[in-house]
Amino acid sequence: VTRALIIGTGLIGGSVAAGLRAAGWRVTGCDERAAARALERGLVDEIGGLDSARAVDAVVLAVPVGATPGVLAQLAPHLARETVVTDVGSTKLGVLAAAASLPWPSRFVGGHPLAGTERSGPDAADARLFAGRRCLLTPGGADADAVALVENLWRALGAEVSSMTAAEHDQLLAAVSHLPHAVAFALAAAAGSALAGLGDVAGLHGAGFVDTTRIASSDGVMWRDIFLANRAPLLDALDRFEDELARLRAAVALGDVDGIAAAVERAHAGRRRVLG
Amino acid sequence: VTRALIIGTGLIGGSVAAGLRAAGWRVTGCDERAAARALERGLVDEIGGLDSARAVDAVVLAVPVGATPGVLAQLAPHLARETVVTDVGSTKLGVLAAAASLPWPSRFVGGHPLAGTERSGPDAADARLFAGRRCLLTPGGADADAVALVENLWRALGAEVSSMTAAEHDQLLAAVSHLPHAVAFALAAAAGSALAGLGDVAGLHGAGFVDTTRIASSDGVMWRDIFLANRAPLLDALDRFEDELARLRAAVALGDVDGIAAAVERAHAGRRRVLG
Repeated sequence: VTRALIIGTGLIGGSVAAGLRAAGWRVTGCDERAAARALERGLVDEIGGLDSARAVDAVVLAVPVGATPGVLAQLAPHLARETVVTDVGSTKLGVLAAAASLPWPSRFVGGHPLAGTERSGPDAADARLFAGRRCLLTPGGADADAVALVENLWRALGAEVSSMTAAEHDQLLAAVSHLPHAVAFALAAAAGSALAGLGDVAGLHGAGFVDTTRIASSDGVMWRDIFLANRAPLLDALDRFEDELARLRAAVALGDVDGIAAAVERAHAGRRRVLG
Repeated sequence: VTRALIIGTGLIGGSVAAGLRAAGWRVTGCDERAAARALERGLVDEIGGLDSARAVDAVVLAVPVGATPGVLAQLAPHLARETVVTDVGSTKLGVLAAAASLPWPSRFVGGHPLAGTERSGPDAADARLFAGRRCLLTPGGADADAVALVENLWRALGAEVSSMTAAEHDQLLAAVSHLPHAVAFALAAAAGSALAGLGDVAGLHGAGFVDTTRIASSDGVMWRDIFLANRAPLLDALDRFEDELARLRAAVALGDVDGIAAAVERAHAGRRRVLG
């Protein structure tokens, strides 16, 4: 039986735990606030502390990216030589830098499942959350057997694995996730403020508003951490976005029909490029 | 039997036609390009010209908002005194101004169903498209019996009807629909451009990107018309959006955790205000 310690049993960690249990792994959960509920829901086999790391094959960090360096430092004294350590954080260069201080850095494999919802906590966890989704790995200089174990972990959860460098990951995620979240936050706030003075218009919207702002319901602490951990690529993506929006705005203001058509064509092409 | 002439039998007009047929109305479709396909799919009972208007109880204009004034002018000579005219356009002040030139302006009732998809054409039409959705009416100075007929029409399609002034409608839609479309277009284009140099990363994204940019697949001609027809309220909404984004960006750039938290809180509040 493969054994895992999941540190952080919220939406993502709880879903990893439940999925690994379903795949036959033995799972220990470590989370001051959420482990009791995770055990109650059957997401984990048992609750343990960081010192449980010594007895497992893999440790999965599923804490907010801002907390990852601190947790890695606390975890370090409890690691055995062979134990593989991985994470699920939305940015990777910072995590990889923190992992370089581990006693055996080549046992660390960065990971990032492209799944999640705007909800959080162990009650939102779901063993099938990663089924059919992508998981990006940033192995860097990790040992081949460590990479293989982490690949097997994600495949056991039903995910499709891709590997890249941490820098590539962070640039990619800035474009397809962090920028959309920043834009969705600003959009939801602006729409709310634009309704001032219109009386009660709650519910008078179409599906487009719901979809474009769904991720604007996401947790503020988690996204504060992600934005700050991936600041430079996000600011670069914001530059591109602001430039696109300024071009579209100018075309609308000037009644430039060709300019609007060109902006929409760039949108269609950009979306096709991302979706494939 | 209530009789309707639907001018434009694409996604929206075709769906109105099919829904009214299902509710027992007799429906004539008028569309140079799409009527034959609409008849083939059984969305309409028959095909007719604008002169069919004389024989119906209600005429529904379902053409792009930019084409509405021209179609109203062509339609005018074929209208009988009692015929009710309505439309489905996404902006209302311009349509109402055009309708003022009709022989009997008090027979015109502006309408706008908050439904649709990023697809278009009669093949995407669906009799259930409006079921459970909102339809906004801008009756202005219309006759009470004309308003009642249009309300009945939308209720027959399963929609819930709300009334407001055309100015209120246009401000509301700028916030909850036109701004989200402008932002989604710019977002899809920027994401595509930010991926340049990353090699093949198609498909490496989460559900957030799909949802926030779904409406960026929308038709460019339709949205060019809407943006230009609702230019001033859209530019006002863009002002608010740019201000929100600038505040969030500055907070990220400065590492201002409280500023990021405040931006996310405004997003949560704005979304709750719109959704109700």
